[in-house]
Amino acid sequence: MPRMTAEELEQFLYSHFPDTAHRAFKVERVDEMFAQVRMRYDRRHLRPGGTISGPSLMMLSDTAMYMALLGMIGPVALAVTTNLNINFLRKPEQADVIAECKLLKLGKRLAVGEVTMYSEGDHAPVAHATVTYSIPPERPH
Amino acid sequence: MPRMTAEELEQFLYSHFPDTAHRAFKVERVDEMFAQVRMRYDRRHLRPGGTISGPSLMMLSDTAMYMALLGMIGPVALAVTTNLNINFLRKPEQADVIAECKLLKLGKRLAVGEVTMYSEGDHAPVAHATVTYSIPPERPH
Amino acid sequence: MPRMTAEELEQFLYSHFPDTAHRAFKVERVDEMFAQVRMRYDRRHLRPGGTISGPSLMMLSDTAMYMALLGMIGPVALAVTTNLNINFLRKPEQADVIAECKLLKLGKRLAVGEVTMYSEGDHAPVAHATVTYSIPPERPH
Amino acid sequence: MPRMTAEELEQFLYSHFPDTAHRAFKVERVDEMFAQVRMRYDRRHLRPGGTISGPSLMMLSDTAMYMALLGMIGPVALAVTTNLNINFLRKPEQADVIAECKLLKLGKRLAVGEVTMYSEGDHAPVAHATVTYSIPPERPH
Repeated sequence: MPRMTAEELEQFLYSHFPDTAHRAFKVERVDEMFAQVRMRYDRRHLRPGGTISGPSLMMLSDTAMYMALLGMIGPVALAVTTNLNINFLRKPEQADVIAECKLLKLGKRLAVGEVTMYSEGDHAPVAHATVTYSIPPERPH
Repeated sequence: MPRMTAEELEQFLYSHFPDTAHRAFKVERVDEMFAQVRMRYDRRHLRPGGTISGPSLMMLSDTAMYMALLGMIGPVALAVTTNLNINFLRKPEQADVIAECKLLKLGKRLAVGEVTMYSEGDHAPVAHATVTYSIPPERPH
Repeated sequence: MPRMTAEELEQFLYSHFPDTAHRAFKVERVDEMFAQVRMRYDRRHLRPGGTISGPSLMMLSDTAMYMALLGMIGPVALAVTTNLNINFLRKPEQADVIAECKLLKLGKRLAVGEVTMYSEGDHAPVAHATVTYSIPPERPH
Repeated sequence: MPRMTAEELEQFLYSHFPDTAHRAFKVERVDEMFAQVRMRYDRRHLRPGGTISGPSLMMLSDTAMYMALLGMIGPVALAVTTNLNINFLRKPEQADVIAECKLLKLGKRLAVGEVTMYSEGDHAPVAHATVTYSIPPERPH
């Protein structure tokens, strides 16, 4: 059972990350070893050719993993990404992107998740990432 | 011999990418199969704990690779990242980050580079990435 | 619809790869954008601590991707791996390992798949890989 | 200063890994945060088209990292790979392959290295990997 609701996670995200880019993210669902995050379509995320930029999708995948992890372990701001591997699969539509993160492992020191990203209303994934977080030794309760 | 100078590459970057985050990047050096890009220290790139955010470093590594590639093949805006793998190695200093990208392969269809990132004035790398770009069939001359 | 059956794929594998390690692999199922491959438990795949070695799991993930790809495009021996990223998640049991590969993208030049590996009879994955293959320009029919 | 010589590392490798494929490996040099390992050319490592197989190069990169790590921390058989990312860059020659591993980080819990692989006598790399090892809490002295 997750320890935090989607609303609590989104509030945590906004209060801890001053980067306004995060305002484009909406935590839509959190479940056992799972989180779904939406990135609202925004012209600032575009790159030449009118497509959503790679860095936006990287940030989205990292955030979806962070939300899935914090959902399970609670608000540990200092959990940090140690590895992120992303494959860009096809040109995203000019639409919101939905990221679904499934935790593959939740250990004491490391958590690994995979994130599949879709343009809203489309079934073919636009990108896929695997993300590893290192969890600091002490956890709050 | 590179086909574009550091100044030309930086101008290309600014004119093709509306995302103002790129304004933090300075193309410092371009050479045979090599580019060096500086990310100026900026509070907006911070994350909890005062460290430079992962997404900023991902964007930096992707940009350094793009600059190394365009330096060799000329201004091909539609070259796109297909894979990026990044390891975060240590907490960056509150300082500029320097990315050095070395092209490992420059094929007709794919280019692969590795990027090592340092806090200015420090020898231990803060992050390391490998990045693959797909090159569109026709190239401008 | 796949172009090759599980039996045809396994025969192709055995006839094209002299490395006897492949004899440990059994192609169990092939479907639209999907293949399932079993690695039979074999003492030669062990490493200190009695666990199945990392290289065996890497080879398994690469083979599962190759089978999923050839299932869709037919017997193209010269398709080659360009990138493989694997996360080792937990110590495998002393049992067969089942790899399930789902193709995320099947383009003209590149195919990307993700592979989840389980010890037989266990639900928690032991490893997860993403694999990219480059497809040579001409394909046999 | 490394804690083990190249000879000690090779002996450790052979005695702990029953897989005879390791017999193809020769630890050539070990230095501060560095190891060089040679994979002798062997027909068993070939794949269709006469090239050295991907799994052989994966195993080589993993082994080079293991040697660089044990060189620094001593004979800790239970250090395990947690992530390996490899890019295959060009068709290797029918020759020995030399792997050079540079440790990028040597932490208490995680070590990260990058491995560049060359066909003997050739300057262009055939493959490049980044490898992460998890180090068990207690270390022998």
